[in-house]
Amino acid sequence: AFKGAPEIKGKGGWSFKPRGRLQYDAGFVNAPDSTNRGGGFGNDIRRARLGVSGDMPGGFGYKFEVDVANSDLAVTDAIISYEAGDVEIMVGQFNNFQSLEELTSSLHTSFIERAAYTDAFNFIRRVGIGVEYGSGDVMVQGGIFTDNMDRLSNDAWSANGRVVYMPKVGDTQLHFGGTVNYREVAPGSTVRYRQRPLVAFTSDRFINTGNFAAESEFSYGVEGAFVSGRFHGAVEGYWRNVNTPMMAADPTFFGGYAELGYYLTKGDTRGYSGGKFGRTKPANAVGAGGIGSVQINARYDRLDLSDAGIIGGTQNGYFLSLVWKPTDYTMLLANYGKLDYSNAVFPTATGDTDYSVDVFGVRAQIDF
Amino acid sequence: AFKGAPEIKGKGGWSFKPRGRLQYDAGFVNAPDSTNRGGGFGNDIRRARLGVSGDMPGGFGYKFEVDVANSDLAVTDAIISYEAGDVEIMVGQFNNFQSLEELTSSLHTSFIERAAYTDAFNFIRRVGIGVEYGSGDVMVQGGIFTDNMDRLSNDAWSANGRVVYMPKVGDTQLHFGGTVNYREVAPGSTVRYRQRPLVAFTSDRFINTGNFAAESEFSYGVEGAFVSGRFHGAVEGYWRNVNTPMMAADPTFFGGYAELGYYLTKGDTRGYSGGKFGRTKPANAVGAGGIGSVQINARYDRLDLSDAGIIGGTQNGYFLSLVWKPTDYTMLLANYGKLDYSNAVFPTATGDTDYSVDVFGVRAQIDF
Amino acid sequence: AFKGAPEIKGKGGWSFKPRGRLQYDAGFVNAPDSTNRGGGFGNDIRRARLGVSGDMPGGFGYKFEVDVANSDLAVTDAIISYEAGDVEIMVGQFNNFQSLEELTSSLHTSFIERAAYTDAFNFIRRVGIGVEYGSGDVMVQGGIFTDNMDRLSNDAWSANGRVVYMPKVGDTQLHFGGTVNYREVAPGSTVRYRQRPLVAFTSDRFINTGNFAAESEFSYGVEGAFVSGRFHGAVEGYWRNVNTPMMAADPTFFGGYAELGYYLTKGDTRGYSGGKFGRTKPANAVGAGGIGSVQINARYDRLDLSDAGIIGGTQNGYFLSLVWKPTDYTMLLANYGKLDYSNAVFPTATGDTDYSVDVFGVRAQIDF
Repeated sequence: AFKGAPEIKGKGGWSFKPRGRLQYDAGFVNAPDSTNRGGGFGNDIRRARLGVSGDMPGGFGYKFEVDVANSDLAVTDAIISYEAGDVEIMVGQFNNFQSLEELTSSLHTSFIERAAYTDAFNFIRRVGIGVEYGSGDVMVQGGIFTDNMDRLSNDAWSANGRVVYMPKVGDTQLHFGGTVNYREVAPGSTVRYRQRPLVAFTSDRFINTGNFAAESEFSYGVEGAFVSGRFHGAVEGYWRNVNTPMMAADPTFFGGYAELGYYLTKGDTRGYSGGKFGRTKPANAVGAGGIGSVQINARYDRLDLSDAGIIGGTQNGYFLSLVWKPTDYTMLLANYGKLDYSNAVFPTATGDTDYSVDVFGVRAQIDF
Repeated sequence: AFKGAPEIKGKGGWSFKPRGRLQYDAGFVNAPDSTNRGGGFGNDIRRARLGVSGDMPGGFGYKFEVDVANSDLAVTDAIISYEAGDVEIMVGQFNNFQSLEELTSSLHTSFIERAAYTDAFNFIRRVGIGVEYGSGDVMVQGGIFTDNMDRLSNDAWSANGRVVYMPKVGDTQLHFGGTVNYREVAPGSTVRYRQRPLVAFTSDRFINTGNFAAESEFSYGVEGAFVSGRFHGAVEGYWRNVNTPMMAADPTFFGGYAELGYYLTKGDTRGYSGGKFGRTKPANAVGAGGIGSVQINARYDRLDLSDAGIIGGTQNGYFLSLVWKPTDYTMLLANYGKLDYSNAVFPTATGDTDYSVDVFGVRAQIDF
Repeated sequence: AFKGAPEIKGKGGWSFKPRGRLQYDAGFVNAPDSTNRGGGFGNDIRRARLGVSGDMPGGFGYKFEVDVANSDLAVTDAIISYEAGDVEIMVGQFNNFQSLEELTSSLHTSFIERAAYTDAFNFIRRVGIGVEYGSGDVMVQGGIFTDNMDRLSNDAWSANGRVVYMPKVGDTQLHFGGTVNYREVAPGSTVRYRQRPLVAFTSDRFINTGNFAAESEFSYGVEGAFVSGRFHGAVEGYWRNVNTPMMAADPTFFGGYAELGYYLTKGDTRGYSGGKFGRTKPANAVGAGGIGSVQINARYDRLDLSDAGIIGGTQNGYFLSLVWKPTDYTMLLANYGKLDYSNAVFPTATGDTDYSVDVFGVRAQIDF
């Protein structure tokens, strides 16, 4: 059967499926002229991934994918898994267990990029071992990690856990989650938190703590979401406390967002399963007598990187998106964002660091 | 069905096919000894590509391929496409619409490398959007591009168009084409045009304009070709005018070639479709009672990089090739070239810059 | 049919199979504290490979695989092959014909890493042409190579040959082999021989000749092995003589090992075919009513890098491993090693260079 690419199955539990995705982004970033930032037009092959996944008799499985966007190689998932009953064990490199927004595939987000805090707080895939327990409406996940294989360290490590409760009440899917993360950085190293204005085709980060010495990070987050017919909503908050050897007080930074979405097309609903959002499958796709699904979304995206003497700046982002999925595996997305910054790192000619940046971005996407 | 690799099809318009090619080159380059160039024996994994292509219901498709020759990663095609009737729209990275020789796959060329001007004038894949219209004997192509994703710039851009008329007269396939290209380089940057002697396993470019400041390039080309039974012929000319901010006159460089080929084996003919040469499928392949197809080709390859005060040198190349295709997806190629240079960049001990370089190259190739 | 991944076949001799492997290693290295080496805990994505192989009508075939571990790209095999009767010709990049241990896939070794001399003496894949003749119990292999495509040189070259006699005596598979290798290094360059303590997740090489000028290497090796029911054994010796332009005498270094293994699980035996060890297929796999195969192995691993005035150090390694294969395509391995060094390159605080290093390593592996 085709799931974008063909999934080939064999007797006894064998399966194999090629995987891939292409995302092409373009748009504009407009900051106050005198900051000499923003740059106007930009474009980017955002993701260009190719990989495979499969199952084997006995409960074993694998998922292995690389990203080659801009002809730079990065391994994304490299997972050996074993499933027995309600428990799955994973070894290799994969996403750590934190944040509904982060764990939702980049194919299925409502905006061109995820909420600001996920990048700002360096959510990346790391090498380690994880365990997932799922039964009915409850899911518990936990793992121990070293670092991303691109910069594999034997000195840094982290442990994290996530709990999700996802009851269905009538026709409404609810989602409640919480996550805790502890990470010890390599001795003598520093941390830095910073973020771009919504789109990835600019390299200007208007808010940025700069590097500072740290020993460890302790983080916790809360997640809430619902899917009800054409509507969905999500809200998350995430706090990062940094243990700093040199400073009088340890700063706690915050990021979070709230979003609401609605399908203009009848019969369409946002996919959800396994503690994260999934694929939207248009009720009436192009090629099957329809025009696909059309969804509008609004989001407020907050990031506060100023605390305890560190002035990294704050962002209040107001975003609108229009997501058109002609078919299950294709997407066109347009979004506009207005980012109100305080204490931005690039001052205007008059020394002002409180200003707005406007961004507009479109994405063409196919996956298989 | 197998087309090198299996093409898997599903109901409703689904298809999926892995893709790949391996090319191993070896040979000799002999320049006058006192130039200290040429280097004698050389060898190279010329191309090592792996990728996928597929179709989806609703008219969508993709092609995604990477080249890993010499363990360097380069994305070649990364295309999201949509086809409706006679029109196809493409987004991503792909070959710009210029030159029969450039658009013909590197699997199906008559010589080990394409005509000198295609490299010299920096024909590369670029990120952008393209439209193709094809109906009957006419094809029209146009696109707007930024740059190759390896060095993606938001400052350079180009636009180009190509028209092809390809009537079949009796048993003879004719091809007439024309192309126009305008490219604005990134402000403050330079251009350079240069070329190796036929083979890629040497790094010596005997003709070379060196870097010089430029604002834009305007180029136009003409194409002619025929395929008639065992014979085929092709001739192209391409002019590049460079808008230079610093020089009194803007130089116009020229490249072009004329080739003639003939199959020694009965029943063989050169593939042609969609405005470019295609795959040769031997009438009597190895493994099916035959020896495959054997073709001889002769080419004159001209490149003139001297104009308006820039002395990049000129090349008059005389090439012969023997192409043996044991089967549809395998090839062995041998070719000899004599390159007469004027104003070459490497003088001999006596200061002479007008001399000949001899090259001999063989290729082993498989694709799927 | 599934061989890890599905092998797709077509009429006339077509076949196609995706290929891949993931290996995740972790463990400890303990050296005397005052050497400031060893580093304690380490972990590593040892191999992350993806590729394809296939056959074509007429006797042609290909194998093409890349390794992306740690997000570094390296092409492993890139082979175009042609088979006619008992003879196979290969062109591209592949393993040179030397050492049972080296030619046995990294999926099927008895320990986490191969014998010390295989790395120390720089056994790598190289670009070239090879011929293999196999008939009955005899196999003869020979090839001419340039270098690995990652650093492809047109100045270095090597030629090598290997002969294997592999009779079956009753139920016992015997293996006898010999290999000769001559390699000319690029003019003006140096060689260096060194090795880690058993595991790859440390970068400390305790024995190391350092770089020294060389013109060529002449090497020869002998191989012996048997597989008999649950038992297997192997012993190899390999001598490398270095032609040095600057030294009074040319050094000859030596490496070798002897190993013995036994399956604790009934009905299991070590795979062997084509002059090398193959895949262990558990008689009673997980998911089919069994626990898979469990094997214990012991090895002595010798490497002597001191001769003719060069004091690179010597290693006497004593290793034990436990190899658990739950299923044909999955493996968990644990091994312990004690490495007695003489003339190690990292002295202790008291200047001692004769000491022991302990290592413990585990591996999780899946392939397809």
